[in-house]
Amino acid sequence: MPELRKDPIVGRWVIIAPERAKRPYDFKDEDELSTEAYDPFLEGNEEATPSEILAYRTAGTEADKPGWRVRVVPNKFPALKVEGELKKRGEGMFDMMQGIGAHEVIIECPHMETNLSRLPVDNVREVLWIYRDRLVDLKKDSRFVHGLIFKNKGLLAGASLPHAHSQLIVTPVVPIYVQEELKGAEEFYNYRGRSIFDDMIQQEIATESRVVLDTPRFLVVCPYASRFPFETWIVPKRSCSHYEDIQRQEIHELGEVLKNVLLKMEIALDDPPYNFLLHTAPFDQKELSHYSWHIEIFPRLTRTAGFEWGSGFYINPVPPEDAASFLRKIEIPAS
Amino acid sequence: MPELRKDPIVGRWVIIAPERAKRPYDFKDEDELSTEAYDPFLEGNEEATPSEILAYRTAGTEADKPGWRVRVVPNKFPALKVEGELKKRGEGMFDMMQGIGAHEVIIECPHMETNLSRLPVDNVREVLWIYRDRLVDLKKDSRFVHGLIFKNKGLLAGASLPHAHSQLIVTPVVPIYVQEELKGAEEFYNYRGRSIFDDMIQQEIATESRVVLDTPRFLVVCPYASRFPFETWIVPKRSCSHYEDIQRQEIHELGEVLKNVLLKMEIALDDPPYNFLLHTAPFDQKELSHYSWHIEIFPRLTRTAGFEWGSGFYINPVPPEDAASFLRKIEIPAS
Repeated sequence: MPELRKDPIVGRWVIIAPERAKRPYDFKDEDELSTEAYDPFLEGNEEATPSEILAYRTAGTEADKPGWRVRVVPNKFPALKVEGELKKRGEGMFDMMQGIGAHEVIIECPHMETNLSRLPVDNVREVLWIYRDRLVDLKKDSRFVHGLIFKNKGLLAGASLPHAHSQLIVTPVVPIYVQEELKGAEEFYNYRGRSIFDDMIQQEIATESRVVLDTPRFLVVCPYASRFPFETWIVPKRSCSHYEDIQRQEIHELGEVLKNVLLKMEIALDDPPYNFLLHTAPFDQKELSHYSWHIEIFPRLTRTAGFEWGSGFYINPVPPEDAASFLRKIEIPAS
Repeated sequence: MPELRKDPIVGRWVIIAPERAKRPYDFKDEDELSTEAYDPFLEGNEEATPSEILAYRTAGTEADKPGWRVRVVPNKFPALKVEGELKKRGEGMFDMMQGIGAHEVIIECPHMETNLSRLPVDNVREVLWIYRDRLVDLKKDSRFVHGLIFKNKGLLAGASLPHAHSQLIVTPVVPIYVQEELKGAEEFYNYRGRSIFDDMIQQEIATESRVVLDTPRFLVVCPYASRFPFETWIVPKRSCSHYEDIQRQEIHELGEVLKNVLLKMEIALDDPPYNFLLHTAPFDQKELSHYSWHIEIFPRLTRTAGFEWGSGFYINPVPPEDAASFLRKIEIPAS
């Protein structure tokens, strides 16, 4: 059973998950991800994954059989386990609990395709919709307080399979980065009576130089204090703290926006490895006027080294104004 | 001129340093570090580096000439620049200042050697001593508030040269991770009236299972909430917030301890890439009874992916008790 342990100085939680390592001291680099190898996420190979939790399927097809368009399954090597009690307790001066949570994989398409961006826009919309459905469902479990959706694309971004997929990890504590965002946003709101996300949207639209895309419902920017080259955020213009409260017409537009942004990035940077993540408010909080869900995308172009790990400072060699200008100019070929 | 920009939500500072990129959109992976290539850190190649700031040398030898044992030079591609004013200012809703600071390289030996651990112990002691000397000197500059010493060993840990070296980055703001440690340690002290570092030392000695080495002046442990497999901390038993206040007999012992720990790690994990970093209190603070400088070492064995970047949670497949037990048992061959 994995454990959640709390760092006594900074309050950061760590998941100690010994079962994740195949062999404890074997950390050899994997080979390149091969699209020729056996693909457990392919339609027809449903027996290679644990039983599905949810799938959007053609009417009349059966669970764990072909006929699906987007499919959610438990991660075969989960960082956290769904069954059990939290058993929060102390160990001497330290705090810990059992590693209870959910770790799911969202298989984004039934055929072998490595890039979410290359799927038809309706397929991308269904991926965004299934994220919502899973959060709505997992939120009902009172042991869980937060869900983080993220994507590792490419070996250097941490992916272990090439077939397009994203992941969802639901935790029994709010992740420290989300806590810090919530705290910063709340302090801003208490001081100024406005949402920092609204202010950022207004500021970026006025400044123009960091805007990648400006659509009726979303703003896409390379943020002012970008940690990474070509870091790009998608922020909804209608402030809404919980992603699971997204509206159908927003998903409709977000599908197009996400596809476009990823295509631009892939053209600009020659199909780079990247991570994206969706920050959203904790399950146990009502709508928060100071916070807004958003998507952060970062291509993995630079190595993080001792300075970044030791300081929390980031050194970014590409000013976000340059990155945004570059991305803005890229034309998406008609598909 | 690089810029320091502050993230408006979480307060994290980012260094935007366009001059660090050779070409703005060229992020191709470098080749392996070769010990056969031209070595700008070799004795005799002093003209390949900027003029030295400090060196421990044989009496009678000249600056920037052979005859040194440990040598400090400015980084040729600095993240921050020494000359200039901070010019703190706002840009709309955002906060920034000029990227003023120091970025130095500590060349740990005059001959080609990749591993600090393989240097004679007196050489390691001189490296530790020169860290102190640089902090004492830089502290005099009122623009600077914090110095972070760190080491990137191996390509995967972010090194760009194989010759044993460490680095020092001095910043005009306290890095957020150090701030968080200071804040957590202060809260603990205010609540319990004791230093959390003292408590940790007592707890770990009593628990035994996470101790790697226990010497008269230092405790080496794999911390309870280790983020990474084989993460190892060296903590001084005499609490002291500023590394630059270290005493000569502590340096003497620390040289041996550091060499031993690195050798154990290198034997256990087959000479892994690793980072180490030295956390110490800000220059502008007096001795703090709630804080203690310490060294954190982490071999780079696992990839960090979207979940870690998005949450601040870490997934560690090796329990620190297993790592410590493994490291404890490794015998260092007599040199």
